[in-house]
Amino acid sequence: MSEPLVAISARILTGLKAAVARAGVDVALAWELGEADKARVRCLLHAGEAHLTPEVLQGFPNLGLIAVMTAGYEGVDVPWCRSHGIEVTYAGGVNADDVADHAMGLLLASSRDMHEQDRTIRDGRWRLEDRLLPQPSLTGRRLGILGLGYIGAAIARRAEPFKLQVSWWGPRPKNAPWPRAESLLALAQDSDILMVACPGGPETHGLVSAEVIAALGPDGMLVNVARGSVVDENALIAALKSGGLRRAALDVFQQEPTPADRWADVPNTLLTPHRAGGTTEGVPNMVGLALENIRLFLAGQPVASPAP
Amino acid sequence: MSEPLVAISARILTGLKAAVARAGVDVALAWELGEADKARVRCLLHAGEAHLTPEVLQGFPNLGLIAVMTAGYEGVDVPWCRSHGIEVTYAGGVNADDVADHAMGLLLASSRDMHEQDRTIRDGRWRLEDRLLPQPSLTGRRLGILGLGYIGAAIARRAEPFKLQVSWWGPRPKNAPWPRAESLLALAQDSDILMVACPGGPETHGLVSAEVIAALGPDGMLVNVARGSVVDENALIAALKSGGLRRAALDVFQQEPTPADRWADVPNTLLTPHRAGGTTEGVPNMVGLALENIRLFLAGQPVASPAP
Repeated sequence: MSEPLVAISARILTGLKAAVARAGVDVALAWELGEADKARVRCLLHAGEAHLTPEVLQGFPNLGLIAVMTAGYEGVDVPWCRSHGIEVTYAGGVNADDVADHAMGLLLASSRDMHEQDRTIRDGRWRLEDRLLPQPSLTGRRLGILGLGYIGAAIARRAEPFKLQVSWWGPRPKNAPWPRAESLLALAQDSDILMVACPGGPETHGLVSAEVIAALGPDGMLVNVARGSVVDENALIAALKSGGLRRAALDVFQQEPTPADRWADVPNTLLTPHRAGGTTEGVPNMVGLALENIRLFLAGQPVASPAP
Repeated sequence: MSEPLVAISARILTGLKAAVARAGVDVALAWELGEADKARVRCLLHAGEAHLTPEVLQGFPNLGLIAVMTAGYEGVDVPWCRSHGIEVTYAGGVNADDVADHAMGLLLASSRDMHEQDRTIRDGRWRLEDRLLPQPSLTGRRLGILGLGYIGAAIARRAEPFKLQVSWWGPRPKNAPWPRAESLLALAQDSDILMVACPGGPETHGLVSAEVIAALGPDGMLVNVARGSVVDENALIAALKSGGLRRAALDVFQQEPTPADRWADVPNTLLTPHRAGGTTEGVPNMVGLALENIRLFLAGQPVASPAP
């Protein structure tokens, strides 16, 4: 067999091709390959939210590894892959600190309406009388975290010195210093702020439903740094418009890029374009771990970070 | 002598008159009083950044207490007041948590350009290719705090789980878990982010000079939640425009409200209108402490929070 080839299989990773080539890897873009080259592909370098169907995967007859460079990998059916002899690796906790930093930034900036306050000054609308207009204090507020993986736990640790009362819910009990709620609905009922930090995929699709949003209530706040699919976005928008929910800060959306007009008349929202994990250090670290998994796999050794 | 009167002596506190009256206090606005009523004034309720000159104070011949409801009190000459038999109280650490929350929000939101990212989405400019554009990670960055009072220490505690390396400088050594730099200039040289959290007033006027800003350097960031007077704002703007400093996040300004056109062409700035301490809980707590000081003073007892 000719030299093994690594193929980038998600279009948003196109920009990484040069960096991967500089690392000495024979790399190509999957959608540019003909049959002969497809047969050389032993590894895919993938972004976890992009869907890899069996039909696509069967186009690579010698595929042995999907190295997902993100923390989420809901676009890859891991049991199907493993039953077809394809290993799947992921980024694990590599960018958990960066995502947690972004999550706390969204929480803090949104609770003080910083993006709108900035605009108030730039539009010449700052009035001294507004100095004492009330805005919420965080001290003592209840922060509920949906999903206590690497990212959820990193958020919880950051939230503690802000004197936020942390609790969480996930399907499995964990050995953690924060109390676990009975259910997601109970978590929302007992929280002022709900932080979504669980994986995407079918198991969590629509988990933050209209009912959960209503349980947060008219003073409640939702922050999502996980996946847009976890939240019923239509229900969220309706609740924000009706006053059923006070505010939302979102890094992820049902559709990305999210249409601008979808948010034009939705009050109290702070939106960032799925940037939580993409930092100067985080991206190279994620690429580095994916390449390390590829190197180990091609050397016939156990991979470093198999998907759970 | 007739009933003692409390006079509000700073115009930005005008909106508090009703709340103070509801607390059972005989209260008036200082600038509306005639000579007879001025003689009844035993206490002023004040905002610390507003200047109280000896000329103004001498208009209240029976004044015994200036209850400053803010943490800063640079507009009041405490030694002069005490030598004239007037006690001065302040808010101490009452709103330190709220100010520290805002400070961390400014740091996090600015480092991720959240206000501009929000606009990117709303203007329909989100492009998937930008997903991997590098942005700074905070992990391991050096945070220098100017002033380790209630607020500075509250910021330091919040910064630790973000894996920021905290150091500080102030004129006096303190028993604190974070290292003290040799000087402010040394602090700036060894910091990626400089957080201004010291008192205002003549002693700190212009402390963050062009030289200190230059020491932060082209990747540096300045956050100010203290007083605009501490920073040479013209030098700051020049450094941001020339690329000598990367970014600034400011809640306080040389002049407030700051003119909108002053910031129109200054890149990488996040601006909030002096709102760090003004929360739903913080304002009542500050008013409550000021009223408690007034109550104690009028009862002939030691005040609760004398200005240091």
